[in-house]
Amino acid sequence: MNDKPTKKWRKKHLLGIADLSKDEINLIFDQAKGFKEVLERPIPKVPALRGTTIVMLFCEPSTRTRASFELAAKRIGADTMNMSVASSSFVKGETLKDTIRNIEAMRAEIVVMRHSCAGSPQMLSEWCSASVVNAGDGFHEHPTQALLDTFTMHEKFGDLNGLKVSLIGDIAHSRVALSNILALKKLGARVTLCGPKTLIPPEIEKLGVKVTYDIKEALRNADVLNVLRIQLERQTDAFFPTIREYAQRFGINKNLLKKYAKKDVVIMHPGPINREVELSNDVADGKHAVILEQVTNGVAIRMAVLYLINQFRAVS
Amino acid sequence: MNDKPTKKWRKKHLLGIADLSKDEINLIFDQAKGFKEVLERPIPKVPALRGTTIVMLFCEPSTRTRASFELAAKRIGADTMNMSVASSSFVKGETLKDTIRNIEAMRAEIVVMRHSCAGSPQMLSEWCSASVVNAGDGFHEHPTQALLDTFTMHEKFGDLNGLKVSLIGDIAHSRVALSNILALKKLGARVTLCGPKTLIPPEIEKLGVKVTYDIKEALRNADVLNVLRIQLERQTDAFFPTIREYAQRFGINKNLLKKYAKKDVVIMHPGPINREVELSNDVADGKHAVILEQVTNGVAIRMAVLYLINQFRAVS
Amino acid sequence: MNDKPTKKWRKKHLLGIADLSKDEINLIFDQAKGFKEVLERPIPKVPALRGTTIVMLFCEPSTRTRASFELAAKRIGADTMNMSVASSSFVKGETLKDTIRNIEAMRAEIVVMRHSCAGSPQMLSEWCSASVVNAGDGFHEHPTQALLDTFTMHEKFGDLNGLKVSLIGDIAHSRVALSNILALKKLGARVTLCGPKTLIPPEIEKLGVKVTYDIKEALRNADVLNVLRIQLERQTDAFFPTIREYAQRFGINKNLLKKYAKKDVVIMHPGPINREVELSNDVADGKHAVILEQVTNGVAIRMAVLYLINQFRAVS
Repeated sequence: MNDKPTKKWRKKHLLGIADLSKDEINLIFDQAKGFKEVLERPIPKVPALRGTTIVMLFCEPSTRTRASFELAAKRIGADTMNMSVASSSFVKGETLKDTIRNIEAMRAEIVVMRHSCAGSPQMLSEWCSASVVNAGDGFHEHPTQALLDTFTMHEKFGDLNGLKVSLIGDIAHSRVALSNILALKKLGARVTLCGPKTLIPPEIEKLGVKVTYDIKEALRNADVLNVLRIQLERQTDAFFPTIREYAQRFGINKNLLKKYAKKDVVIMHPGPINREVELSNDVADGKHAVILEQVTNGVAIRMAVLYLINQFRAVS
Repeated sequence: MNDKPTKKWRKKHLLGIADLSKDEINLIFDQAKGFKEVLERPIPKVPALRGTTIVMLFCEPSTRTRASFELAAKRIGADTMNMSVASSSFVKGETLKDTIRNIEAMRAEIVVMRHSCAGSPQMLSEWCSASVVNAGDGFHEHPTQALLDTFTMHEKFGDLNGLKVSLIGDIAHSRVALSNILALKKLGARVTLCGPKTLIPPEIEKLGVKVTYDIKEALRNADVLNVLRIQLERQTDAFFPTIREYAQRFGINKNLLKKYAKKDVVIMHPGPINREVELSNDVADGKHAVILEQVTNGVAIRMAVLYLINQFRAVS
Repeated sequence: MNDKPTKKWRKKHLLGIADLSKDEINLIFDQAKGFKEVLERPIPKVPALRGTTIVMLFCEPSTRTRASFELAAKRIGADTMNMSVASSSFVKGETLKDTIRNIEAMRAEIVVMRHSCAGSPQMLSEWCSASVVNAGDGFHEHPTQALLDTFTMHEKFGDLNGLKVSLIGDIAHSRVALSNILALKKLGARVTLCGPKTLIPPEIEKLGVKVTYDIKEALRNADVLNVLRIQLERQTDAFFPTIREYAQRFGINKNLLKKYAKKDVVIMHPGPINREVELSNDVADGKHAVILEQVTNGVAIRMAVLYLINQFRAVS
């Protein structure tokens, strides 16, 4: 972060954490800190992106992430346009390439894209002159989620170097997990993955993480537990016997925390929580949880990402 | 209204008419009068709420009320964000409490909420620092509808003290009815309810209203007929034999008016009208009807409510 | 266009090409040229319609046209409000007339309307004081599509007088075809229609166009091929044996172009393309196609139409 030559943002897109350097992540954090202050003002809006239109291209249902991006865009003065295209002519009657070329031809400046196919935002960035922000693509990446998660840890602990973070749950089907692992490793954190064997990809240790199938092990010495959502609607195959058994083996409750976790462990969850599955009620609402700070930070991080990308776009 | 000490608005939320004093209702009317003039200007917009984002949290289908609120918000310069959450992760995967806490964490300033469960806006106001405006909750209240109805009467008759108003139709399943009764009583009107026995709650006379099951009785001497919508889609049980019979017994037509109503009776309907059910075509489109003035007043009243609430929010 | 007395726009609505003079079409083109330059600026937005709210009343699914209108509206500084009313109380519980009167009562300044019934925008314009722009009504007209199509030809060829344009495909069920024919005839172009006999209305020659059922004939000497979309979802009856046969008889491919078309023929398509049906991939993506310029021009044309209509509205 003190590395002067890289202090400037030089990215047109945010497609994934994989493309970001540690300095770039810290640059986003710095910007987000400033915007978080803006959010506390009586009129929480700055005119930085006045005149810019941001297209929300959500090809997968989403309220939470879309709302966070839309609010972020409005807070920095941009106009937004929703193209939720589940059942519309975009997608149905045409190829993704034609959809993309149409957005290009409409001269959108920035497109925030969610899509069920990994790599779609990458395609969009190649075939379109707009700046592209990935809002989640298949099981690939969800970079702003990882940025808001690590920013929240950064607020609690300062430098993430050496911080012990356990990611718990369905690692295999989670873009949140992959983006988190990449961001945490770049920032020097020590990452442990924990979940049922069927939900942890083989050879994932190659990313430089530890794997355990024992929740007690994941809790011991962890500074942060980032507990992922079990996507009940996505798992058509049976990766674990029952939700009840999952909750018993991997759900975090107060008793478990008291026995095995650090006294001041920080508990995160990307939401929405399946209460009494991933987290018991008393943990979700308890003093360790920073889940709502994550939501607030999500708006600030997305303001920062859109702002930096727009600045680079304007000068390039 | 000349009562100086209460001239100032001191409410953070608008959850129901039950919470409002007569002075507060008149304060909203005064503000709405001013905004109605704004609506007649070539550029019908004032920058009063510039920089403020109003979240439209509609957990029940609605075009009409949502549009009215959204237009009102834009006319006073606010940004709006739609969260229509029928099938989204808000609601499905999480409890109402978690939805609410997320909205809180996103730092929305004002939330306009419609929900099928009575009391939801109340919950939102308790768990969230945003100002909350109830846009209809279950069979409970729909305060802005009652305000626009009584404002329309106020425009026609001045003081409502002693005004005779008959509410006709499904009283039992109508948040419009309850909010109207409360507002009319506060303003001194004399209220008669009329409908099939199955659609009028027992002991409702305790609210200080008269009840009749005879439409002729409801028409006699009434200054205003506020004819409620039969929610055909909601009544799964048979509260009356057939629509045809309902129309014959309680539908208002020209003949009935000529025989039993005052010569200059005012006819209101919250819309959308089931034509030839609640009202015959000639009555719906006739000289007594002020149904479209209600719609215009709806925008003005919602501008006033959002404006007053935002002013209080800003100073508190 | 040099005809001084008609140089000023004096229309409150844009309901169809049928209502426009050649001078008025050229006036729109002039305005669109200016706005196309605006779209190339770093901040592609002018505050011309600041304070004006444009209601997008789309009673038929649409992403593409709605997005183009919405972007156009934002680029000239207007606020937009979506009323996509497929399943809402507008439409379901009430007549079109009541819907319209409600929009009137809400005091919308400009309404952009798409509806599956021909003539709906006309009705809206009669019963409502708002300015109305037809965004497609049934099989009747789609004027802004024809304007963007002819504007694109105008950019390529200058004056359209004597230009040979072939419209290919489903002429009978296409509002794009009818609006194109009307615009092309007004601008002096020579129009040939080509498609299966079942998809070309009898006696359409009375509009002053030639008809052929032979694709080779349609290609010979044509300066422009405007290839229409086969609305696979709309044709419940079998107007042609199979899609495959349609593609073989009327689909445009490179081989066909080489054999029969002018060397510099311009190929247009309103999108979305059914690839390998109306156009082969190499033609859709080839040097003759100006399909994406059409999309860009669509935004500029819609900016021009909204701007001119608003100007007239403001002075009248």
